[in-house]
Amino acid sequence: MPNPAVSIDQLSIDTIRLLSVDMVQKANSGHPGLPMGAAPMAYVLWSKFLRFNPQDPKWPNRDRFVLSAGHGSALLYSMLHLYGYDLSMEELKNFRQPGHRTPGHPESNVTPGIEVTTGPLGQGFANGVGMAMAEAHLGAMYNKPGFEGVQDHYTYAIVSDGDLMEGIAAEAASLAGHLQLGKLIFLYDDNDISLDGPTSLAYTEDAMKRFDAYGWHTSHVKDGNSIDEIEAAIKAAQEVKDKPSIISIKTIIGFGSPLAGTNKAHGSPLGPDNVKKAKEFFGWDPEATFVVPNEVYEHLRQPGQKGAELQKEWDAKFKEYEASFPAEAEQFHVSFNGNLPEGWDKDLPVYTPADGKLATRQASGKALTAIKKAVPFMFGGSADLASSNEMDKSGDDSFQPGHYERSNIWFGVREHAMGGIMNGIAHHAGLRTYGGTFLTFSDYMRGAIRLTALAESASTFVFTHDSIGLGEDGPTHQPIEQVTSLRTVPNIVVLRPGDANETTEAWRIAMNTPKSPVCLILSRQGWLPFDQSVLTPAAGNVQKGAYVLSEAQGGTPELILIGTGSEVPLALEAQKVLQAEGTPTRVVSMPSWELFEHQDKAYREQVLPRNVRKRVSIEAGSPIGWSKYTTDEGASISMNRFGESAPADYLMKEFGFTVDNVVKVAKGVL
Amino acid sequence: MPNPAVSIDQLSIDTIRLLSVDMVQKANSGHPGLPMGAAPMAYVLWSKFLRFNPQDPKWPNRDRFVLSAGHGSALLYSMLHLYGYDLSMEELKNFRQPGHRTPGHPESNVTPGIEVTTGPLGQGFANGVGMAMAEAHLGAMYNKPGFEGVQDHYTYAIVSDGDLMEGIAAEAASLAGHLQLGKLIFLYDDNDISLDGPTSLAYTEDAMKRFDAYGWHTSHVKDGNSIDEIEAAIKAAQEVKDKPSIISIKTIIGFGSPLAGTNKAHGSPLGPDNVKKAKEFFGWDPEATFVVPNEVYEHLRQPGQKGAELQKEWDAKFKEYEASFPAEAEQFHVSFNGNLPEGWDKDLPVYTPADGKLATRQASGKALTAIKKAVPFMFGGSADLASSNEMDKSGDDSFQPGHYERSNIWFGVREHAMGGIMNGIAHHAGLRTYGGTFLTFSDYMRGAIRLTALAESASTFVFTHDSIGLGEDGPTHQPIEQVTSLRTVPNIVVLRPGDANETTEAWRIAMNTPKSPVCLILSRQGWLPFDQSVLTPAAGNVQKGAYVLSEAQGGTPELILIGTGSEVPLALEAQKVLQAEGTPTRVVSMPSWELFEHQDKAYREQVLPRNVRKRVSIEAGSPIGWSKYTTDEGASISMNRFGESAPADYLMKEFGFTVDNVVKVAKGVL
Repeated sequence: MPNPAVSIDQLSIDTIRLLSVDMVQKANSGHPGLPMGAAPMAYVLWSKFLRFNPQDPKWPNRDRFVLSAGHGSALLYSMLHLYGYDLSMEELKNFRQPGHRTPGHPESNVTPGIEVTTGPLGQGFANGVGMAMAEAHLGAMYNKPGFEGVQDHYTYAIVSDGDLMEGIAAEAASLAGHLQLGKLIFLYDDNDISLDGPTSLAYTEDAMKRFDAYGWHTSHVKDGNSIDEIEAAIKAAQEVKDKPSIISIKTIIGFGSPLAGTNKAHGSPLGPDNVKKAKEFFGWDPEATFVVPNEVYEHLRQPGQKGAELQKEWDAKFKEYEASFPAEAEQFHVSFNGNLPEGWDKDLPVYTPADGKLATRQASGKALTAIKKAVPFMFGGSADLASSNEMDKSGDDSFQPGHYERSNIWFGVREHAMGGIMNGIAHHAGLRTYGGTFLTFSDYMRGAIRLTALAESASTFVFTHDSIGLGEDGPTHQPIEQVTSLRTVPNIVVLRPGDANETTEAWRIAMNTPKSPVCLILSRQGWLPFDQSVLTPAAGNVQKGAYVLSEAQGGTPELILIGTGSEVPLALEAQKVLQAEGTPTRVVSMPSWELFEHQDKAYREQVLPRNVRKRVSIEAGSPIGWSKYTTDEGASISMNRFGESAPADYLMKEFGFTVDNVVKVAKGVL
Repeated sequence: MPNPAVSIDQLSIDTIRLLSVDMVQKANSGHPGLPMGAAPMAYVLWSKFLRFNPQDPKWPNRDRFVLSAGHGSALLYSMLHLYGYDLSMEELKNFRQPGHRTPGHPESNVTPGIEVTTGPLGQGFANGVGMAMAEAHLGAMYNKPGFEGVQDHYTYAIVSDGDLMEGIAAEAASLAGHLQLGKLIFLYDDNDISLDGPTSLAYTEDAMKRFDAYGWHTSHVKDGNSIDEIEAAIKAAQEVKDKPSIISIKTIIGFGSPLAGTNKAHGSPLGPDNVKKAKEFFGWDPEATFVVPNEVYEHLRQPGQKGAELQKEWDAKFKEYEASFPAEAEQFHVSFNGNLPEGWDKDLPVYTPADGKLATRQASGKALTAIKKAVPFMFGGSADLASSNEMDKSGDDSFQPGHYERSNIWFGVREHAMGGIMNGIAHHAGLRTYGGTFLTFSDYMRGAIRLTALAESASTFVFTHDSIGLGEDGPTHQPIEQVTSLRTVPNIVVLRPGDANETTEAWRIAMNTPKSPVCLILSRQGWLPFDQSVLTPAAGNVQKGAYVLSEAQGGTPELILIGTGSEVPLALEAQKVLQAEGTPTRVVSMPSWELFEHQDKAYREQVLPRNVRKRVSIEAGSPIGWSKYTTDEGASISMNRFGESAPADYLMKEFGFTVDNVVKVAKGVL
């Protein structure tokens, strides 16, 4: 039985705490300490500030809430249940069990009300920054005199010591300060404990001073159990309009349990005895589990009911907006529904050899320019390589304080934050996002790319300078393993287009792929677009992942050359030589393994027939994985080692990416 | 002709500048801006502070210098040439050309005098922190009363805007401040320009205040051309013994050229006209290239000559040390030569099934404990997962200010910095390093792992919780793609041992692999060690990458089951069933693809004979790459999607990692 002697505030907080404790204990797995320490700040935020409607978790103008410290998922599930979201007590009782909505860490595509998938530390921090950037941009796009609230919401997060130690958070924080994101408010659960012990052993910086340096508003709450202190600090943060805010709230991990204040309360269940003692500490019946007093249910349903009213008002106002600004309103709907403007792709560029040599990065730049014209809700940029990635290089058009209407993001040299911010923008909804850097530096972003894939969200990554073909910068910058290693990520689409027209198609696919990250793998160096009057056109075929670009003489191949990216033209040249020498040779362009694997068996058999087993793949990257397509009787021309600093032409020759070598290897397998 | 009217200091600086400019122009590729702006600070540092001996670039007590902004490599090559290292003018003239010692970015295994391979931003910053940690630890290990200089040197670096924007630098900076690394001094080339334009568009934090917050000593040099100001600031930094220092030096990128102060001077050659104008600006003959006045050669040889004297003194003192502390001196030699103490591995644990179930992470913990006893120069730790990685959990034994003699590093939740710091420790020499985290978070560290591999350096990565076998934490923490994606990195060794004895061997291999990073892929869950009285023993076999763990009945297999890690016991169980049903089945344990590929053809044929093509691989990770080993007639039991939050046993069953399913798939290929 809960303690009747306390206020409804306190009773609610203790209910959140003890529900979380019971969840972890029943699952015999999880993190009880964070919910026990952070329940008061979560309660104050959700009950007194957060605008949300549990009946419509996708209301476009809701406040966003991110639990960056995703290991405290029990807290979030308790909150969602108590505040009226579609998450039953049965789900709480099945915490971390298969087929339920309460996985070990929050997953946005599993549980209504979860804004973004978190757990790997630092990601949620960057996601929150991305959401606040999205809000600022959308507000500037859609709000009009008399309609200041089309987009006007806060983004809140609870962040932990671990989040603040991660580099991705530092990168995102620096950018957020620069951008003066006044509606971003983070609550820092400052409990002095990380998994291995006291933070004093590794983390003694003055974190709030650091955020001061980034240009944030900072404040301290000395007692993390004080509702009033927390409320005052959040109010003060809301008053600061031109800076993001972080409130350092001193809490006690595992508060109320005998393990309070130690890392033993961090990552393991408290144990039955300690659970009982915690319940006694709060004046509750030590034997009862999963208890929610009726008055708590009633009390905690109120903010959501208020939110439903707010949404009703917003809906009514939006109706007026539709009347006054029909085009904007239409676009708002289209974008928030994840759709694209009709005919958005009709002006995508098409090329002939007469257009001259083009690097696929250049073709990407042209496609992106056309898309941005047709899709006004594109919002992305580069990690300080816009000029190399062939993106908008004009600082004048960059998203900046005072110019939130601009759509070109200058991420700075912050690849990992770029990935996390893109993920936040995508989860916010209402915008389509893209980001560019060198392919080699995709290594810096994998944590973010993975979560985009896991959450079935969308981001388009523009990875240029995709092989030793980048030349003199040398092996530190020459990707070898990156294309293959990206392919290993589940639910990803990796596309390495073979010419300018394939690049246009790659962008079309990226725009039409709402539930996977898409990586565009693009060359520094250029070559002529394929002659589509002779060869199979890219449109309609790139989307199949692989297709017969050039059929063998007579239609029955003895050999198949499979190329990707800058190696496709090499395959075409080698085909000529081989056919002249009497070997009917097919050239398959294979921009995407994943898309090819999604085709039916008949199509796959058509492109790579079982009985044509003499095959050679040509890709200036790792050989790993190619044998599936080249068969036991084939071979791969690939990179088994790091490259070298030298002009690109030299390197291509040195490492066997020549017509002569392709012909030689082909003869070896025949 | 150089300008005779200036001081020798100025003439030297201008020589460095113009040599760099000529290198970039001749290569028609590279970054002239940084050398032109940062030449004064480099000159002051090398001429007035840095203790080095160009005749012996590996002198153990030399000061370390890192060019974190590796794109400014022309600066470093100019310096190495002028200060007397083994880098000829011919090499400078062949900047960025194949077969030369002057690659696009500095590579420590290519050029004498380069301490560490840099270029990807932020890495050199973390490397420097690692070097300073190594120095502090070695000093505490070896210095004795009367012998305070066995290890007593500074670590310097030049870092750029881009370095400071990177998260890895933020992580490393926070740890360096915590550790009070007084002999770490960074010069920040604060030139307000990054590749895409002015830093004011993305980077407006108060960086020095941020470093204050980390616990660093900070100072400003207003005029980056002022030798006196720079000298005074470095002197002041040396006086601060209990804090790392960063000196923000305001410079002008491309100083002296018409493109000065713009991003046009950043990443492209100046162009012939601008080169001439720059030479005119400095009062030099605009037509002459690669000019070094004799007096500059003479002047710049002096610091190295002084360094040679210093080393001579150090050598003499070390002779005395050898007499007084023979054991320490011997160990010092052994470790700095990259060797191990004789018999270091004689107490490595060996297991029988009677030892009970063991997770390979536990076996790793036991091996590491044995190694640390036998090898006193192990220096590593965990990114706040020591308890999960089965490392030393005792904060009492952690490397801390005032206790630099301790060898257990608490990296904090800073995976990327951990990788970069390990790389710095390894490049410092004198220590062997290792670091642990969850395998999933290897994603955060790839930038650092790659450079370790490229530089042919050594680090042992302890990656635990290696599959869906981690259970309830769910898909955010369950690796799927990581093992495969690590395998794609050139010059890496990935080892996923199949039981406790294989884990011991994996550690033995890691310790004996001086020129590659080694990733140990370890399970959360446990099983019985294989019975080595019946099965092929691990010792001597794991090092071959794959071996016949259990031969088929009768010795001639119809089927080969290939397993790694926690899936090897499954293969053994399935073997029993299949053999009972009449199929002679071989089980191959394949802990490492890379090591197997290094075996000769005869051995590979012996383990995986060409004529036994019915093969099934079992690995709870990505299928990519397995078809090379399973052939066109085989199959892979693997993970094609993300996992789920549930108990491990449930997941293993759900995703087909059961004896029944292995038998079923095997029958399918037979």
